[in-house]
Amino acid sequence: VRVTVLSGGVGGARFLLGLRELGHEITVIANTGDDITMLGLRICPDLDTVMYTLGGGISADRGWGREDETFRIRDELGEYAATLDESSGSDAVRSWFGTGDLDLATHLLRSTWLADAVPLSEVTRRLCQRWQPGVRLVPATDTPVETWVTLADGRRVHFQEWWVRLHASVAATSFDLAGGRTAVPAPGVIEAIRDADVVLLPPSNPVVSIGVILEVPGIAAALEATAAPVVGVSPILGGAPVRGMADACLAAIGVETSALAVAGHYGRRGAGGLIDGWLVDTVDAADLPALHDLGLHARALPLLMTDLDATAAIASAALDLAAEVRS
Amino acid sequence: VRVTVLSGGVGGARFLLGLRELGHEITVIANTGDDITMLGLRICPDLDTVMYTLGGGISADRGWGREDETFRIRDELGEYAATLDESSGSDAVRSWFGTGDLDLATHLLRSTWLADAVPLSEVTRRLCQRWQPGVRLVPATDTPVETWVTLADGRRVHFQEWWVRLHASVAATSFDLAGGRTAVPAPGVIEAIRDADVVLLPPSNPVVSIGVILEVPGIAAALEATAAPVVGVSPILGGAPVRGMADACLAAIGVETSALAVAGHYGRRGAGGLIDGWLVDTVDAADLPALHDLGLHARALPLLMTDLDATAAIASAALDLAAEVRS
Repeated sequence: VRVTVLSGGVGGARFLLGLRELGHEITVIANTGDDITMLGLRICPDLDTVMYTLGGGISADRGWGREDETFRIRDELGEYAATLDESSGSDAVRSWFGTGDLDLATHLLRSTWLADAVPLSEVTRRLCQRWQPGVRLVPATDTPVETWVTLADGRRVHFQEWWVRLHASVAATSFDLAGGRTAVPAPGVIEAIRDADVVLLPPSNPVVSIGVILEVPGIAAALEATAAPVVGVSPILGGAPVRGMADACLAAIGVETSALAVAGHYGRRGAGGLIDGWLVDTVDAADLPALHDLGLHARALPLLMTDLDATAAIASAALDLAAEVRS
Repeated sequence: VRVTVLSGGVGGARFLLGLRELGHEITVIANTGDDITMLGLRICPDLDTVMYTLGGGISADRGWGREDETFRIRDELGEYAATLDESSGSDAVRSWFGTGDLDLATHLLRSTWLADAVPLSEVTRRLCQRWQPGVRLVPATDTPVETWVTLADGRRVHFQEWWVRLHASVAATSFDLAGGRTAVPAPGVIEAIRDADVVLLPPSNPVVSIGVILEVPGIAAALEATAAPVVGVSPILGGAPVRGMADACLAAIGVETSALAVAGHYGRRGAGGLIDGWLVDTVDAADLPALHDLGLHARALPLLMTDLDATAAIASAALDLAAEVRS
């Protein structure tokens, strides 16, 4: 079975660990809106989280970055920052983005290749030669795009600044994908959706992860047009995100933080929407009738990805629901 | 006393440690021909060696790079390089240039500022806010220049590739400074030579360190024109360089590896040359009459910079010789 997954970072990567257990041919289309250039290095958090997670290199504690990581360069930059006079500007030494040393090697290599005009999709292929993630990992687009956030206080900041530096503590009023309007799907992205047997939306952030992928021109249309069923896994359980701060993102776009509301936000295919089926947690089983009313195939099961078996069971249920849609 | 020193890396930096002990106002004009861009990072080996040495951060063992250094990123890049297929190209992962982790922080910061159009001299000033070298450290030029080497086998390689990767094992036939013809002395360089009380050439490589500084248009002329005496310290003792591979450089330009020949190569000021005085090691005391015949003030004393006292004694002798020239 050819399975195509639109994925953000941590949540998507964990889901993929379970899906991979089922032995299908998997293509992952990863969000690149979180990407940021710091100290001249192009950092692609979601691509790297998927790559490290599936390649066995992820930090088990943090869920992002590398296991056995050190932060000597970050600390060293801090030493410099502490001594700089005002005229030197300290923007270049942004300690709030604490890239580890091993992680930096990935960014250095990627940035070198990008500077040589190697597209991000090819860069990702090269990096994956080492990590052997067991899936085909493709960025949503090779066009540099970045999610920017407009805050309630009027500031406009890069998504990472809002997410990592401000911990989403200042309310967001909107998101926009800088570079998005002229972005082109990376080679193979449209085909992977078109030719898939199943398309899955894992429990990634519906706004700044999957929502951003869908903003790349052509991808949402491909999702609407594919013959494959499209099934999503709710990232919201009992009115709260399992991890991350999806509630802050949903609030910004006026969507309630509930499994039902997110399904309604994606909408039913054939009725202007993008999904055919929706998995919710057992805690949200009461939403099933309303989901059916929306015309969606829906099922309730435990959605906490507590271990590999539990995660594989969720992935398996998603494929089962896709089969139900197809039949 | 205002002392201006034209310096390369290790030898010059050690000499400066001794000179600094004497309590004068020191300006160091550093060679930038060794500079190289790797993995998108601008690396300035001589500037950093002087900065780290005078700032107390140099590796005592290696004489370059940082004390307590680790090489996690270099090793990590090696992990990537080992897995790349042929189409990925491995030029980006040049393991022969083993930059340490702490050192990388300096390169990252410098490269970020350079990308922001901050001149190298201002970048150096900023970095020195941390290292407090006790001298004014200035690159010979803010113009990007690089020494390239033509080899006996016809290849043309960056100086660092010849020096670090090939260990100067393939004979060089010539050196040229890429970007040199249009290079402009960094702000303050010409003034530091013009307004100095003494100009010193420390025991740096006469070809690829001091020779390269002198190739920056205007610097040799400033040396010829300054009212200050110009005194050099021989980097050659008993027919061999104290360290480094200056013999391989001298051979390429047809100069014998001897204290006398290097003095002749610099030449006497007022006769088309650049120096007034020349210090040789006691092992080369027999050269003194020939040096006097060249019209140079000369003196023989132990030139091995074995410790700080010995090095300060050499610096002191250089200043004494300058006083003799002046009187």
